[in-house]
Amino acid sequence: MAKKLTKSPKNVRVGVLGSGSFATAIVKMLLENCKTVNWCVRNEFVKGAIEQRGHNPTYLTTVNFNLKKLQITTDINELVSNCDVIILAVPSIYLAESMEKLTCDYQDKLFCSAIKGIVPKHNDIVAHYLRDEFKIGFKNQAVIAGPCHAEEVAMERLSYLTVAVAEQDDADILREVLSSFYIKVNTSCDILGNEYSAILKNIYAIGAGIASGLGYGDNFIAVYVSNAIREMETFLEAIYPEKRDVNDSAYLGDLIVTAYSLFSRNRNLGNLIGKGYTVKSAIQSMSMVAEGYYATNGIYAICKEKKLKLPIINAVYDILYEGKSAEKQFAKLTDKLT
Amino acid sequence: MAKKLTKSPKNVRVGVLGSGSFATAIVKMLLENCKTVNWCVRNEFVKGAIEQRGHNPTYLTTVNFNLKKLQITTDINELVSNCDVIILAVPSIYLAESMEKLTCDYQDKLFCSAIKGIVPKHNDIVAHYLRDEFKIGFKNQAVIAGPCHAEEVAMERLSYLTVAVAEQDDADILREVLSSFYIKVNTSCDILGNEYSAILKNIYAIGAGIASGLGYGDNFIAVYVSNAIREMETFLEAIYPEKRDVNDSAYLGDLIVTAYSLFSRNRNLGNLIGKGYTVKSAIQSMSMVAEGYYATNGIYAICKEKKLKLPIINAVYDILYEGKSAEKQFAKLTDKLT
Repeated sequence: MAKKLTKSPKNVRVGVLGSGSFATAIVKMLLENCKTVNWCVRNEFVKGAIEQRGHNPTYLTTVNFNLKKLQITTDINELVSNCDVIILAVPSIYLAESMEKLTCDYQDKLFCSAIKGIVPKHNDIVAHYLRDEFKIGFKNQAVIAGPCHAEEVAMERLSYLTVAVAEQDDADILREVLSSFYIKVNTSCDILGNEYSAILKNIYAIGAGIASGLGYGDNFIAVYVSNAIREMETFLEAIYPEKRDVNDSAYLGDLIVTAYSLFSRNRNLGNLIGKGYTVKSAIQSMSMVAEGYYATNGIYAICKEKKLKLPIINAVYDILYEGKSAEKQFAKLTDKLT
Repeated sequence: MAKKLTKSPKNVRVGVLGSGSFATAIVKMLLENCKTVNWCVRNEFVKGAIEQRGHNPTYLTTVNFNLKKLQITTDINELVSNCDVIILAVPSIYLAESMEKLTCDYQDKLFCSAIKGIVPKHNDIVAHYLRDEFKIGFKNQAVIAGPCHAEEVAMERLSYLTVAVAEQDDADILREVLSSFYIKVNTSCDILGNEYSAILKNIYAIGAGIASGLGYGDNFIAVYVSNAIREMETFLEAIYPEKRDVNDSAYLGDLIVTAYSLFSRNRNLGNLIGKGYTVKSAIQSMSMVAEGYYATNGIYAICKEKKLKLPIINAVYDILYEGKSAEKQFAKLTDKLT
């Protein structure tokens, strides 16, 4: 078991792994409270660009950083050694590549995942990956859930995060380092439920985008989302029963924002497919990773194993991985929704 | 107790009271199945215009009717006498004016409310108004709930209705007369719950519009909606406990479509207020009745009586009826949401 984070929030050393839009948004949040933020970015180019320009060269370019407060590296061992809390915010497909380089001591650190996807090589969620491959127990893990599109953080528009973590002291510290006039933080004990729901909502957002691309209207999408949250509840109850209200912001709120917002890349991927793009060309046309694509494969496998029949997940899987017609699959799906 | 509707759906005589957009949409739905639809419109001008042009002169003007199948009147007694099922689809503020003219025998009829508002003179919901003023018991009542914006029905975009009614036979008949290739019908026994939730969602939609008008973004609105459905559940449990899942389409779906759709007049009213219009000028600028305005007063009174503290309802009430600043009320509200 890990050393407790006995430091005060002012002194706790926090770092972020990743240089995409959500990682950049988290660095911005942390800088509101922390004297220094450690930031491990993808490569020397990104590091140099941030140090020269004061902003991420590719994502949230309007967010300017006080460079004196940033400690930028490309070395995950430097990041982890220098920090008590490490916020993981790389796309799930790149997580293993980074983590496999980890050689320093990390057993007393808190790993906090802001990743909403499946680790493809292991076809499993991040919490399990960290536990199984790195012996990081759930007491040393936390999950950061939304609804929180990074683009709105950049604009300092009020957003709510939910931090799921086992120990109340850790929850307090995470709340304090992340809170600001535009970020409010809820806390929760449902680490795995929050992680699974964050993954599922990306699949549902792809489906919402497909429906929209196919020409279904607002009335239908509302019915679709109300079915999606019920499906999500069925999944969570089957996989990880826990006293939870799926209508809390981290579950329903995150589902809604991802299914409706034009900032949602998963919704946009679905929309292209609904409009007739092939899955391959839709993915290629996007500059950012749509986590839901990989998640669909992993979650579908779990459903199959657990004999869960979830009509929306099935329809999205058949469209993305079985080459089935979006139009036909959704026509069938409409009969299964209520 | 009423005579049962023993007729087959093909022969059941159905009528609609009202000539607004939702009434017009319902007439369109019924014409897919019924040989004749009885339609009681507001006045002779509307009657003449429909008979001459084949469409409603003001609402859903693109919907053309087969006039041979329409029996149009301005006399509620003619409507009720000629029908087994009467669908009430006038704005709630005009319902009493119509119903007070009722002199014919109506005790064996099924009154089906598609109204989502409070009857202002009685400050009560339609189901209670019909029961208390006309001795129409709940066994002779039904409620039609959405999510179903009339504008999308006009476009024949797939929509789902929920019909809440006590008797299964009546549910079957209503399902059959309303279903078509663009309308799917769920059934429910929760008559009062469906009516209350349809009223509440209009208040929440005004609040969503206010937030949007004030500049709050997608992340916040998603948190707001997830709080709204929890508030709705608290209200329904307090007023009318019943085994229900508020994530069913008629509750959550209807809330989402009303809070998000640009077709939502309640959302639009809120949006104008959020942008700085006075409540009075915002109402005056709209050509259609925003039910949520009147509903806020009625629901707030119920909350006060039942000592229910519902932060969103309170904030919307204070803005609409107490002249308080939308900006300040929402700033306070953000601390109460989770």
